[in-house]
Amino acid sequence: MARSIQHRGEEPPRTSPPTLLSSSTVETGSKWLEFKRDTLRDSSGRDFTWDYINRLTKFRETDGVGIFAKVTGKEFAEPHVLVIAQWRPPARNFVLELPAGIISPGETVEEVAVRELKEETGYAGRVVSASPELYNDQGTSTSCLNVVVAEVDADAPENAAPETEHEIGETIETLLLPIRGLRRRLDELKAEKGWGVCSRLYSLALGLQLGGGL
Amino acid sequence: MARSIQHRGEEPPRTSPPTLLSSSTVETGSKWLEFKRDTLRDSSGRDFTWDYINRLTKFRETDGVGIFAKVTGKEFAEPHVLVIAQWRPPARNFVLELPAGIISPGETVEEVAVRELKEETGYAGRVVSASPELYNDQGTSTSCLNVVVAEVDADAPENAAPETEHEIGETIETLLLPIRGLRRRLDELKAEKGWGVCSRLYSLALGLQLGGGL
Repeated sequence: MARSIQHRGEEPPRTSPPTLLSSSTVETGSKWLEFKRDTLRDSSGRDFTWDYINRLTKFRETDGVGIFAKVTGKEFAEPHVLVIAQWRPPARNFVLELPAGIISPGETVEEVAVRELKEETGYAGRVVSASPELYNDQGTSTSCLNVVVAEVDADAPENAAPETEHEIGETIETLLLPIRGLRRRLDELKAEKGWGVCSRLYSLALGLQLGGGL
Repeated sequence: MARSIQHRGEEPPRTSPPTLLSSSTVETGSKWLEFKRDTLRDSSGRDFTWDYINRLTKFRETDGVGIFAKVTGKEFAEPHVLVIAQWRPPARNFVLELPAGIISPGETVEEVAVRELKEETGYAGRVVSASPELYNDQGTSTSCLNVVVAEVDADAPENAAPETEHEIGETIETLLLPIRGLRRRLDELKAEKGWGVCSRLYSLALGLQLGGGL
């Protein structure tokens, strides 16, 4: 049962959301992102503005897919996960993150997941579950992704010699990390290499630790 | 051990990152975000541009704090977590997320966590662990946060009558959700209420489920 702190034991009241008074686009010449400015009035009559970016590559309610790919096989004593270190211009650094990709028109979430996992890590996998669309940075962006859980059989013939296929602007290294102890390993990699870490990957690792003492 | 797929059993090679050729700022008049455009050359000599936003409220390597607050007390048969539904202009909707706040100059991560938890949910808590700074949307933004784990004793005298304190533009409802089954409950709330869901909160819930069969 969802409960409100102000109304213990009852369903939370549906607070009146702000009213959108106007929305404008600031010209940037970008093919990928537009800069937006909304003016809003809150339920007590106070006006405020809000700046954010909107992804122009959003063809449906979501625009990307992140893949948690669990790898098993006879050479692994315990399950591993595929993590990439991708060079990201905003970070001016490599960032440890889940393999991920942008959805093209007409593609399903599952198709993007299988394709991007293969392109970015070289591995073939199959999707076992998918989240609804999730906001990456809801204070400043419309950017959304689905998080997918996939299984990779490292012993399958198609995974005998994984080969990656990177696009222009993609500089990616692939790591296979044990799922047990993943949070600690991310902390170590950040400290050892000076790499950045993605908040979604870290939150997943934190959940693994809190959920099972991993 | 971190391993590269291309070099099984060895440390991954340090791929040559792109070289930054130039960086410009597109004027938007925003107090909060600036729109940036980098021109880069990859290791094979191909040039490309990258558009992204930079937070102007970044006073150190991170700019925000998200709080996973575990609530225990005699009225709870099992641990709960404080989740907020905050109205977010980019989403034009309520978004289910962890309580969070922006760091002001001179504040520590722990101070922000305790203050924002109190302001947004009404509860007093204490920080038990903190992540390093983590990227929220590293493809399009410099936005970073630390994820903090906090403990809340619902039986403590200061938590007898939790009162929230919201700023202009903040429309927030607080929910207390059981940690067990959190992923399923987020799916249900999205379906029942039509609310958005934050990717960090969902990834944490997915990790809890995968880590312990919750």
